[in-house]
Amino acid sequence: MVALAEDTMRAQATPSKPFIDVLKQRPTSRTPIWMMRQAGRYLPEYRALRAQVNGFLPLCQNPELAAEVTIQPLKRFKLDAAIIFSDILVIPEAMGLGLHFVSDHGPAFHHIPKPEEYHKLAVPDPDLELGYVLEAIKKTKRALTDTPLIGFCGSPWTVATYMVEGGTTKQFSKIRAMVYQDPKLLHVLLQKLTQASILYLKAQAAAGADALMIFDTWGGLLDAPRYQNFSLDYMQAIVKAIKADNLYNEVPIIIFSKNGGRYLDKQVETGCQALGLDWTADITQAKAEVNGQVALQGNLDPAILLSNPECVIEETKKVLRQFGHGGGHIFNLGHGIYPNTPIENVEALINTVHSESPHYHGEKS
Amino acid sequence: MVALAEDTMRAQATPSKPFIDVLKQRPTSRTPIWMMRQAGRYLPEYRALRAQVNGFLPLCQNPELAAEVTIQPLKRFKLDAAIIFSDILVIPEAMGLGLHFVSDHGPAFHHIPKPEEYHKLAVPDPDLELGYVLEAIKKTKRALTDTPLIGFCGSPWTVATYMVEGGTTKQFSKIRAMVYQDPKLLHVLLQKLTQASILYLKAQAAAGADALMIFDTWGGLLDAPRYQNFSLDYMQAIVKAIKADNLYNEVPIIIFSKNGGRYLDKQVETGCQALGLDWTADITQAKAEVNGQVALQGNLDPAILLSNPECVIEETKKVLRQFGHGGGHIFNLGHGIYPNTPIENVEALINTVHSESPHYHGEKS
Repeated sequence: MVALAEDTMRAQATPSKPFIDVLKQRPTSRTPIWMMRQAGRYLPEYRALRAQVNGFLPLCQNPELAAEVTIQPLKRFKLDAAIIFSDILVIPEAMGLGLHFVSDHGPAFHHIPKPEEYHKLAVPDPDLELGYVLEAIKKTKRALTDTPLIGFCGSPWTVATYMVEGGTTKQFSKIRAMVYQDPKLLHVLLQKLTQASILYLKAQAAAGADALMIFDTWGGLLDAPRYQNFSLDYMQAIVKAIKADNLYNEVPIIIFSKNGGRYLDKQVETGCQALGLDWTADITQAKAEVNGQVALQGNLDPAILLSNPECVIEETKKVLRQFGHGGGHIFNLGHGIYPNTPIENVEALINTVHSESPHYHGEKS
Repeated sequence: MVALAEDTMRAQATPSKPFIDVLKQRPTSRTPIWMMRQAGRYLPEYRALRAQVNGFLPLCQNPELAAEVTIQPLKRFKLDAAIIFSDILVIPEAMGLGLHFVSDHGPAFHHIPKPEEYHKLAVPDPDLELGYVLEAIKKTKRALTDTPLIGFCGSPWTVATYMVEGGTTKQFSKIRAMVYQDPKLLHVLLQKLTQASILYLKAQAAAGADALMIFDTWGGLLDAPRYQNFSLDYMQAIVKAIKADNLYNEVPIIIFSKNGGRYLDKQVETGCQALGLDWTADITQAKAEVNGQVALQGNLDPAILLSNPECVIEETKKVLRQFGHGGGHIFNLGHGIYPNTPIENVEALINTVHSESPHYHGEKS
């Protein structure tokens, strides 16, 4: 990476926030780390709090508790970022679909719009209909003054899969059929979700989010031309709209298409600052492919955290080694942490990143 | 493709079986077609027969009915191959695990072996414990004298996922944790399944199967080194064992790793005759990559068959065009046909392959 004198000075002038520094292409003294779903069921303190609330959505909708849950992993671990505790489906919930969670099955909706009704869907005003998330962000920022906070949304394609299928599914056959049979109506839905996501991400940044992430959990289901048309183009529209707004153009954006490692070259072109990698991606190859244009975030297999500390330490070192020298890496899992993950394995992961990653930073780069 | 005079003569001497011809790298006058799960619920005659039997497994285990179901799509459509009606989990069933199917949920087992019991698992004798499949193959061959019949098994890794998880799953976290925590015991299971698969595929060929296919539905979950170690190495061991046996070394073998399009170069090295491609693969790029060493089978998105005949015709032509001239293509779906597929769309697909594919064969190659 080319040394930038001005950036280096800026990095020295402010307290070290390696997560933001990597997103801004500034040098860091070690690799930052956070974990997808780091606020969640593997933590006993989360389970204790969750037991007091009747449902997952009510927990998201209670700003006090959502902030507390967001902060829980930061109290326990040396993490470099927090991510607001919420769900990618709060946008369809705000559109009036009646989101609920069926135990052991996942999300479902009470009101599933018909394709011919998509044009009538209202784009939610985040201040009115998603104020609970914004309030949770503000509360979190007041409590966590020194830690960057990530705001997020789902990609329009990914959120649309749930809206078209009516909830979680294994085959995604309804939306994939629509791609071929009724692309125009599907694009109406995707455009609505894109408008909603732009407003929602800007509102999260205004409330205090220091970085934004777009979770494209199901983009990898599509072949290359359709990934571009139905998923990536809309993520790009979101990135461009945020970058075009003087109020938010400095807020870094991370894009994560699960199972989308074959589309990195196209993801770079969105104008985002980092790409998430799932555990099947080869991080050495990905680094060569993005060639310093964006940072990479990932990609330890979360299944490794179900093993034992020795194995976790070894595999964590391997990911650091595979990325190698020169910066531009945010350590993360390749997918959300599993609810049955032992705490000691998480500690082994985080301690290893703290102790081993400095070898890959500094002079040798 | 280099013209082989001897092969051409052989092709002319026997009745045209384009499916086998492609697998043997012989020229054909059109592209052969069959469909994964072509015998199944989208057919009214299947649903009528299925309603008479108490369960999916009893249907597989009744050679008379299994043969009838196998033949059903051949009576209706101009297909170039039949595939024996069975399931990849008949091997663990024959190992005594008590396979059953929970409606709307998928397969499950009554007896899930503990990892420390894997070494005690008995490798089934196909003639004794899987005789119902062999009998169904014989009955099918007697009825379908002119159509090639495909025998199959699951890849050891894929079958193991069900045995370790205890049935179907979304995260595969148990077996993926085992990959890291207990690879030795997992390899014991994979070796058992490999031995069982070799015996089982040979027995299917002995009973009359003209080609063999290994379904690696879940290999694509693994990163490159682990795909090699835990899935591909075992498929290669199966291919090599069959090719090393003088009785079966002429039987063509097809390997299909769903979501494994990034590993084609490695799959070619197994010694198989064809590779399956799912719908996310780029068939033009795949053809360049395998460079005539093996045939390619695929890869129309089965979701297209949920649309309408016009759309099916257009997308079918596109796949033919993307593969292009020169032979070496077996038309298929990129995944099993969906139960709610309209018959008229299947007809549109098959008719289009018959009418359009001859343009890509012959002189122009």
